[in-house]
Amino acid sequence: MNAVLRPEAVPATLFDKHRATFERAVLACRERHAWSPYPEQPGKYPDAAAAQAAGLAAFEAHRGSAFALEQPGAVGELGEEVSPYTRKPLGVRYPRSGIDALFDAAEAAIGDWAEASVDTRIGVLMEALDTLYREHLFEIVHAVMHTAGQSFNMAYAGSGVNALDRGIEVLVHARQAMDAITPRARWERAFGTTKIVLDKRYRLVPRGVAVCFSCASFPTWNAWPSMLASLATGNAVIVKPHPATVLPMAITVRVFRAVLAAAGFDANLVTLALDTQAEPIGKLLVQHPKTAIVDFTGSVAFGQWVERNAHPALAFTETAGCNTVVIDSVTDLDAVLRSLATTLCMFSAQMCTSPQNIYLPKQGVRTPRGTVGFDEVARRLADAVKALTGDPKKAAMILATLQSDRTHAMLDGMAAEGERRGEVLLRHAPYSHPEYPEARTSTPLMLKVGKGERDLYGEERFGPVSFVIACDDAADALAQATRDAKEFGGLTAFFYSTDAAFVERAERAFARAGAQLTVNLTGPMPLNFAAAYSDYHVTGLNPAGNASLTDLAFVTGRFRISQSRQPVPAADTTTA
Amino acid sequence: MNAVLRPEAVPATLFDKHRATFERAVLACRERHAWSPYPEQPGKYPDAAAAQAAGLAAFEAHRGSAFALEQPGAVGELGEEVSPYTRKPLGVRYPRSGIDALFDAAEAAIGDWAEASVDTRIGVLMEALDTLYREHLFEIVHAVMHTAGQSFNMAYAGSGVNALDRGIEVLVHARQAMDAITPRARWERAFGTTKIVLDKRYRLVPRGVAVCFSCASFPTWNAWPSMLASLATGNAVIVKPHPATVLPMAITVRVFRAVLAAAGFDANLVTLALDTQAEPIGKLLVQHPKTAIVDFTGSVAFGQWVERNAHPALAFTETAGCNTVVIDSVTDLDAVLRSLATTLCMFSAQMCTSPQNIYLPKQGVRTPRGTVGFDEVARRLADAVKALTGDPKKAAMILATLQSDRTHAMLDGMAAEGERRGEVLLRHAPYSHPEYPEARTSTPLMLKVGKGERDLYGEERFGPVSFVIACDDAADALAQATRDAKEFGGLTAFFYSTDAAFVERAERAFARAGAQLTVNLTGPMPLNFAAAYSDYHVTGLNPAGNASLTDLAFVTGRFRISQSRQPVPAADTTTA
Repeated sequence: MNAVLRPEAVPATLFDKHRATFERAVLACRERHAWSPYPEQPGKYPDAAAAQAAGLAAFEAHRGSAFALEQPGAVGELGEEVSPYTRKPLGVRYPRSGIDALFDAAEAAIGDWAEASVDTRIGVLMEALDTLYREHLFEIVHAVMHTAGQSFNMAYAGSGVNALDRGIEVLVHARQAMDAITPRARWERAFGTTKIVLDKRYRLVPRGVAVCFSCASFPTWNAWPSMLASLATGNAVIVKPHPATVLPMAITVRVFRAVLAAAGFDANLVTLALDTQAEPIGKLLVQHPKTAIVDFTGSVAFGQWVERNAHPALAFTETAGCNTVVIDSVTDLDAVLRSLATTLCMFSAQMCTSPQNIYLPKQGVRTPRGTVGFDEVARRLADAVKALTGDPKKAAMILATLQSDRTHAMLDGMAAEGERRGEVLLRHAPYSHPEYPEARTSTPLMLKVGKGERDLYGEERFGPVSFVIACDDAADALAQATRDAKEFGGLTAFFYSTDAAFVERAERAFARAGAQLTVNLTGPMPLNFAAAYSDYHVTGLNPAGNASLTDLAFVTGRFRISQSRQPVPAADTTTA
Repeated sequence: MNAVLRPEAVPATLFDKHRATFERAVLACRERHAWSPYPEQPGKYPDAAAAQAAGLAAFEAHRGSAFALEQPGAVGELGEEVSPYTRKPLGVRYPRSGIDALFDAAEAAIGDWAEASVDTRIGVLMEALDTLYREHLFEIVHAVMHTAGQSFNMAYAGSGVNALDRGIEVLVHARQAMDAITPRARWERAFGTTKIVLDKRYRLVPRGVAVCFSCASFPTWNAWPSMLASLATGNAVIVKPHPATVLPMAITVRVFRAVLAAAGFDANLVTLALDTQAEPIGKLLVQHPKTAIVDFTGSVAFGQWVERNAHPALAFTETAGCNTVVIDSVTDLDAVLRSLATTLCMFSAQMCTSPQNIYLPKQGVRTPRGTVGFDEVARRLADAVKALTGDPKKAAMILATLQSDRTHAMLDGMAAEGERRGEVLLRHAPYSHPEYPEARTSTPLMLKVGKGERDLYGEERFGPVSFVIACDDAADALAQATRDAKEFGGLTAFFYSTDAAFVERAERAFARAGAQLTVNLTGPMPLNFAAAYSDYHVTGLNPAGNASLTDLAFVTGRFRISQSRQPVPAADTTTA
C-alpha cells in the first residue's frame, strides 16, 4: 500500500463526495421506486458524441495489443476472444498470473482494507463505479459488443448503467448489514455481590478471498454486484472471466485497482485470473484452500458443481433460467403477442431472464371477442416474431448476435427434435447483419410440442428457441409452468389472465416456485426488464441459483463478527 | 388448522401481549448491554418453591410413561434415555413417526403460517417462549439434568433462561431482516413516450422444511434459537434430538404445537423425529428431498458431513470447540488461575465454549513480583482445579456429571498418551456425588505437553481434559493458539497480558482466527459465560461452525423474496 497516504485520510473525502447519490439510493432501495443516477439512453450521456467517439477509440486501441495490468505472478500471456460481429480475433493479449501468486497477493491485501471503516470502503467503491461511468462506459460498451455480442443499446443499458445501478444497490445492502452491528458496548452485571463491567468490541471480519466468475454473454451485470458485495464487506476479489469475454472485466479490474491504489489501498484487492477454453482453471479456483467466497454466473452444469464443491467457501450462483409464460385470457391478444415476441427476440434470448416455455390451454386463449384457438395463438405469435426479425436492420437492433458457435448446433438439434416430436412454428436462419456481414446471427426457432416432451423444454436451451406447449386447460398450464420452474430452475415468469382470482392463485404459485412474476404486461417495456433498486433477482427457491444480488442475504454471510471483551478498570467504571 | 379461528384474528393480541418485552429486546440487541426479561437465579423465579416442586413432579411423572404427542405417521415407540445421575433408564416412551409422514405434514402446514404477517408469527413464537418459561421451565431443568447431566443451576440458567433469551434475540434479528423488505411498491417510468406504471408486490417466501438437530449435552441452547429462526421466517421445523437427550426437546415440541394450534395454525409446523443410537436417521433427514434448512449441533465428524452433503439445503452448524488460553503476563496470577480453574471445571468442560488448550511461554508468566516459571504456573493451575473438585459437594455443583460413557474411555486414553508423551499434571478419577451415588462423574485430567503433540490437543476432546502447552515465548504462544483455533475450529479464546500493545495484537489475531476473545478477565463470572443480546457466538471463520445464532446472517437465508408486478390500470395511475 501507499506509504504516504494513510487509508484513514481518504474516507471522509470519497464517501462525502458520493454521499448524496448513496443516500438517494438508500431511499430507492427501501421504497423500491424507479430511480437511477444514470440516464438510460446513450444519447443523454454528458457530451455524448465526444464520449462515444472516445470510447470507441479506446476500444479500438485494445485490438491487437497487450493489455497492461501490473499483477503479481505473471507467467505469460493469453487471449482468445473472437468478436461475434466480425468473427475475427480481437487480438488482445492479457497477462496470465499464477493462481497461488494471486491468492497470496489477495490475502496480503486484505489487512488495511478490512480495518478501514465501512464508509471508507463504500466511498472508494462508489468512486470506482463513478470512474467506470465517467471514463470507461463506452469503452466497455464496445468491449461487451465484441465479446458478448450484445447490441450497442443493450450493452449500454444492460451491461453499462443498469449494472452500475445493481452495484450501488449492493453497497446499500452491505452498509445496512454492517451498520446493524454496534462497534462497541459496555456491559455490566452483578455476579453474586461483585459487579462485572466489560468493554466489548465487535469487529467485522471479512471471510477472505472471493472468486468471482463472470459469464460470456452478460459479463458485468452479475459480476459488478458480486465484486462489490465482497469488497464492501472487506474481502479481496479474484475475477475469473469466461475466456470468450475477458475485455469488459479486464477494464473493470484495472479501474478498481487504480481507484484502490489512489485511495491508499493495495491494488491486489482486485486481480484477474485467466484461462482458456481448452485449459479451464475454474475448479482449481473454487477448491483453492484460500477461497472463502465463490460468485458464479454461467452454465448449469458447472454451477451445480460449484454449489456442491465450494464448501467451506460460501457459494452464490446464477445458472439456469428455464423461464415460463402462461396465457389464460387477455384483453388485447395482439398487444400480448407483440410484447412476448419482442422479449423472445431480445438479444436472441441470451438473457437469464428470457422466456422460453409458453404454456397455453389446448382449447385456446379467451379474449373479449371469443376464444382464439391454440394453433392460431401459436401461429400469430410466430408471425409476430417473424415480423420483428424479417428486416435485417430491425433484426440487428433486437437480436444482435449469437455469443457462441455452439448455439447454432443447439438450434439445429432442437429443430430436428421439434420436427420429429411436434411442429416447427418458425424456422431459424442466419440473418444478414447490415453493418457486420460476417456476424454470427440467427432468427429465432419456435416449436410447438405436447407437454410430454419435457426432456426438450425442461431445461434452459441457451439461445433463440422457444416452445409453445399445449396444456389440458389454464389450470394445467399454471401447474406445469410452476412445476417446471421449481424443478428446472425458473428465474422469471410471465402470466396473462383477466380473472383476478386466477391471477392471485398464480402469484402464490409462482412465489412458491421462486420465479419473479410479471402479470398482464404489454407495451414498450421489455417483459423481462429488471429495474435496479426495485426488482428482486434470483430467489434461491429453485435451481436457477441463489444469488439474489439485491437483498441482505447476498451480503450478510460475506463478513463475520468477532468480538473481544475485557474488564474495565474499577476507576473507569465509576465515571461511565 | 383450526377452522373457526382464522390466524389473522390472533396476531394483534399475541404480538401486542409481548410487544413491550420484544421492543426492549430490540434495544438490547442494538446496544448489546446486559438485560434479560428473566431472573437468572432459580430462587428469583415467581413463587419459586411451588414452581420448583411442580416442575419436579411434572418431570417425575414422565418416568416410565408414554409421552403423548399427537403427530402424524406414528409407527411405534422408542426411548433409550439413561440418567447420568442415576444410571437408570428414564423409561420414557416416545411415539416414533415415519420420516416421509413428518415431511408431508410439515410441508402441508407451511401455507397459512407463511402467509401470516411477520408480527403474527413473532407474537405466536414469543408466546411459545413465554409458555416454556411460565409452565415448563423446572420440568425442562430436571429433564436436562437427567439426560444431559447438567447441574440444577446450570440447567436453569444455561439450558433455561439463557436459551430463552437467545430465542428472543433470534426473533429480533428475524424481524429486522424481514422488515427491511417493503411489501408493496408503485413503480413508474417512461419507455419512449409511454409511461409504464407497475404495482409490485414482494412476498417473503420460506425455504420450506427445516431439520433441527439438538445435541446430547446442551440440547436447548442451540436448538431453541435455530427453531425460532426457521419458524419466524415462515418455515416448518422437524426437531431431531440426540437419542440420549430427547425429553427436553419433546417437551419443547409439545409446547410449540399447543401454542401454534391455539393460535389457529397447524401444529405440524413443529414435529419430533426420533431414532436410536443403533439406527440413526440423521443422514436420511439431511438428504431428504424436502429438507430446505439444516441446523446441526453435535460432533465434528457428522457436522462436517452435514456441511458437505446438505446441499441444496442451507446448513448451519456448531461442531468443534478447540478453545484456547494464552497467558503472557498478569497482575494477579492466583486470580487468573482461579478463574481458569473454575471455567475448566464448569460442567466437566462439556460446553462448546470450554477452554481446552493453555499455551504458556516456556520461560513462564510475568507478574508484578517477577516471572513465575512454566512448571510452577502449570502446577498451581492444577492445584486450583484440585481445590475446586476435592470436596464432593463442591465438585457436584461445578462438575455435575459426564453425559456419555464414552468420555471415560477418552479420558483414560488421553491420560495414557499424556504419560507417554508429556506429563500428567492432574489425574482424573470419579468423585462420589453426594446425592446420586451412582452418578457418572470424573474430576478433570490435566496434561503438560510440548507444542509438537498437536495430534493430541489439536481437536476437541469432549470432556474434562486440558493441555498445558509449552511455547517458545509469548508471541509463539499467541501464534500457536490462533493457528490452532483457525485450523481446528476455536469458538472461544482467553488471553492474559498486561502489555496493551500485545493485547491489541491478540485481538486482531483472534478476530481473524474467528474465536470470540475474553481478555484479562478474573472474578466470579465464568470466563466462558456468553451473554444473550450482547455476546456473539460462532463466527463462521473457522471449522467450529457457522451458526452464529446471533446475527442477521443466521436468518437472512431462511426466507427468500418472490415478487409479482402488474400494470396499474390507467384510471388508477392518475389518482395515485
